[in-house]
Amino acid sequence: MNILGVVVEYNPFHYGHAFHLQASKEKTEADLTIAIMSGSFLQRGEPAVLSSYDRAAVAAKTGCDLVFELPYAYAVQSADRFADGAVRLLKKAGATGICFGSEQGSIDPFLEQADIEKTHSLQLKQILRSKLNKGISFPAAYSEAVNELSVPHSLDVKQPNNILGLHYVKSAIREEISVDTIQRIAADYHDPEPTDSHIASATSIRIMLSSNRTKEAFAYVPERSASAISEQLQATGIIPGWENYYPYLQYRILTSSTEELMKIAECREGIEFRLKAAAEEPDFSRFMYRLKSKRYTQTSLQRLSTHILTNTTAADMEQALSVEPPLHLLAATSAGRKHLRLIGDKDIRPTVKGSSQRKSDPLSASAFDVHQLAFPVKSRLISYQQHAVMI
Amino acid sequence: MNILGVVVEYNPFHYGHAFHLQASKEKTEADLTIAIMSGSFLQRGEPAVLSSYDRAAVAAKTGCDLVFELPYAYAVQSADRFADGAVRLLKKAGATGICFGSEQGSIDPFLEQADIEKTHSLQLKQILRSKLNKGISFPAAYSEAVNELSVPHSLDVKQPNNILGLHYVKSAIREEISVDTIQRIAADYHDPEPTDSHIASATSIRIMLSSNRTKEAFAYVPERSASAISEQLQATGIIPGWENYYPYLQYRILTSSTEELMKIAECREGIEFRLKAAAEEPDFSRFMYRLKSKRYTQTSLQRLSTHILTNTTAADMEQALSVEPPLHLLAATSAGRKHLRLIGDKDIRPTVKGSSQRKSDPLSASAFDVHQLAFPVKSRLISYQQHAVMI
Repeated sequence: MNILGVVVEYNPFHYGHAFHLQASKEKTEADLTIAIMSGSFLQRGEPAVLSSYDRAAVAAKTGCDLVFELPYAYAVQSADRFADGAVRLLKKAGATGICFGSEQGSIDPFLEQADIEKTHSLQLKQILRSKLNKGISFPAAYSEAVNELSVPHSLDVKQPNNILGLHYVKSAIREEISVDTIQRIAADYHDPEPTDSHIASATSIRIMLSSNRTKEAFAYVPERSASAISEQLQATGIIPGWENYYPYLQYRILTSSTEELMKIAECREGIEFRLKAAAEEPDFSRFMYRLKSKRYTQTSLQRLSTHILTNTTAADMEQALSVEPPLHLLAATSAGRKHLRLIGDKDIRPTVKGSSQRKSDPLSASAFDVHQLAFPVKSRLISYQQHAVMI
Repeated sequence: MNILGVVVEYNPFHYGHAFHLQASKEKTEADLTIAIMSGSFLQRGEPAVLSSYDRAAVAAKTGCDLVFELPYAYAVQSADRFADGAVRLLKKAGATGICFGSEQGSIDPFLEQADIEKTHSLQLKQILRSKLNKGISFPAAYSEAVNELSVPHSLDVKQPNNILGLHYVKSAIREEISVDTIQRIAADYHDPEPTDSHIASATSIRIMLSSNRTKEAFAYVPERSASAISEQLQATGIIPGWENYYPYLQYRILTSSTEELMKIAECREGIEFRLKAAAEEPDFSRFMYRLKSKRYTQTSLQRLSTHILTNTTAADMEQALSVEPPLHLLAATSAGRKHLRLIGDKDIRPTVKGSSQRKSDPLSASAFDVHQLAFPVKSRLISYQQHAVMI
């Protein structure tokens, strides 16, 4: 039996995701599909436009049989840990292989690159360290380091989905599950405007949604995704974005001592004073502009902001990463539930209630509660009252 | 030269305050009047309806020659420390005596009571401790203890302004400045509705202001106070009350560990879990209702809430109380400035700029910034950009 594993964010679920899901199922001849999905905050340090349960329900209605939450400690993370956590959870949930979308589109260059990096691991680390010491960001340093290795390679490691894919491949090799890739179509990851009539990046869709161009955005998302967005808009009037959380972030920075800020995950020395100064800005975009430097990418600053917002300390993060990542079910189809019963004999008990998640994964439960603060008081949900959605 | 000292909150300045100020000046034949005023948050743990500078400007226009801020560490405090900090600062600023309003109205019963408490201090402490151990609140325990002393006394220590006054008297004796009292008129401290045609309690005026009965409220405040309120309403649309800060308080409690909550000033063991549970409530009044117990008065819970909101730890408080309280000037008339030049020779240098206050009294500066969060982003002020108002 082929059980396909996919790693997703679906923020929101759009035609590009639908294409990837369908193509992956076909390529791997999947009998069942398991998704590991970021929860309330995403890998790039952004709040989700819909709650994790709502996004999971759309995924389960659109082809994923089981949707589990990637714990906060792995989700709001650099690509290597993100991939590591997701692939470990997929293996645990019974996936026999994974398939990811990439700019590259064929798996061999990834396998070659993984092999090169294993063989030259020491040399690569040295070059990488000297680059990082010059103060450039990790993605740039990594790409330069790979090129300087002077080993012929065919994978373009400047492409964001190729880099992420490479981490999936390394994790899949380690976890001994099969791995494949399909080519991403049309929209580039960061494109602020759509480039194709039906495919747009999640980023461009979020921009449309946040600027009241809802109808326009709906041209790029399947109907089930559109109705989830509509329902939330009707109930709350809000599509969460950083601006909705900025008052809390600003308040937190304002009332934290620099010692308290230094305890936050990914807060490196020196940034605490810049955070204090930048928090005087009236909105999140000006805050980010004032914070940005050669040393920090926009993404790493957004992740840091997320950790400040959720008050996730380096100690909290270390603790969460030191234990086996828990499987928390967000949504399941009947086929998915059947699979769960089959693997139930083993030592795998996914939590299905928010109240259990509060114990097994307090960071994700707390992130859910913080995420809800964007909504008006009356429409807020509380993490421990949530249950996995059964489709 | 008679230099009168008064301890005020002026939240907002009303006819009762005007009466107290005028009567005190006449009774003490004052040549100059110095006020020590609470800043952004008040003794009973409530946000000020106007910023400290705006309230000070009204005071300076209405008969106070110098208005200094009572530092946060003394202002948001039990009556004894509040009185102690205020009287020490008045002495430092050159006041030769103080005069306070009380239900009692004549000074002798206060002097007698201070003497009784000095003579029977050990016995009183023992009774008080046994009362407190039974879990009743401090004011109730104190009043019962005084009655059980079985020493004849004529001061009614159940009246809130008599209790506060007694602390002023004890502090004045310690600081060796003269002390007098005048009788408060009409409205009781806590009266939610006005009882006289021109005198209403600040509480009842705040209720009118927060329920859009502005015109009605203006019958009880002098014109200068009314126009300060009108100006703020026009600029910001807001009269700050706890409901304006509840989203931040709720967010803070939600994202703080119980260990972090336990570090907050006045957070006594056991309340941290009740705080977590109560923070699920959608508004401040329901939060307070859920939190209330025999052990904590509404006032002590409001002070605790203020400390959580401003992230004031017990260690911060201890540090602030261990140094000489700084004199921070909020407003001055020309007569006040002349006095400042005269006392300038001595070791007294009041800070007049918010930027200096950030160094000399970071808790008050930070409380100012937090207080501003009630206002829309565009109309917010930053503590270090503020200057004393010269009238």
